[in-house]
Amino acid sequence: MERIPILKMGDLLLVTIQVDMHDRLAMTLQDDLTARIVKDRARGVLIDISALDIVDSFIGRMISNTAAMARILDARTVLVGMQPAVAITLVELGLTLHGVQTALNVEKGVTLLRQQAL
Amino acid sequence: MERIPILKMGDLLLVTIQVDMHDRLAMTLQDDLTARIVKDRARGVLIDISALDIVDSFIGRMISNTAAMARILDARTVLVGMQPAVAITLVELGLTLHGVQTALNVEKGVTLLRQQAL
Repeated sequence: MERIPILKMGDLLLVTIQVDMHDRLAMTLQDDLTARIVKDRARGVLIDISALDIVDSFIGRMISNTAAMARILDARTVLVGMQPAVAITLVELGLTLHGVQTALNVEKGVTLLRQQAL
Repeated sequence: MERIPILKMGDLLLVTIQVDMHDRLAMTLQDDLTARIVKDRARGVLIDISALDIVDSFIGRMISNTAAMARILDARTVLVGMQPAVAITLVELGLTLHGVQTALNVEKGVTLLRQQAL
């Protein structure tokens, strides 16, 4: 079964999205991620989208929802690795990624989460 | 263009393989990874295969070759997240992953690389 791996790094979880998301894959990811936040007592989630050339409203909403779920479970979400073209498209389409923080890359995302944990 | 993202974490690089590898994707990954080792002065490479249910001789050879290239560039490679079924298949097929170290997960892989860097 297709599944996006969730990597544990200390009290953070890292998800790298490389494939086109569809409904079921997005739901599986949300199920897996929320379960792992609880199991691993994660304080933060990094979602890397550097492999995505396009972020449409479906993926945008999926990311916002995932961040909202994580937030309820007391974990912050940072979206990292966004390509310049994606940022342009998001603004032009008026997609706001409500409730999601962003950082340039994984390292800066980790720094951001560490600062907020203090 | 399809491309596997390479994430920088300190002096380590992390590659998560989620999709079926084919010739061109494997070559692109090797090109990208060797370029990034030099550019980021990476000392270690973590290849996560937790999403792979099957590792055939092509992927096995690709991983071995990638590790050999990294080694020449003074970076060590650790393969992490192997599923139990994959380990069974590798041994049954007689695939040895020559020159590649393994660790249970990303965290243990990082620890292994840090120890060897001392």
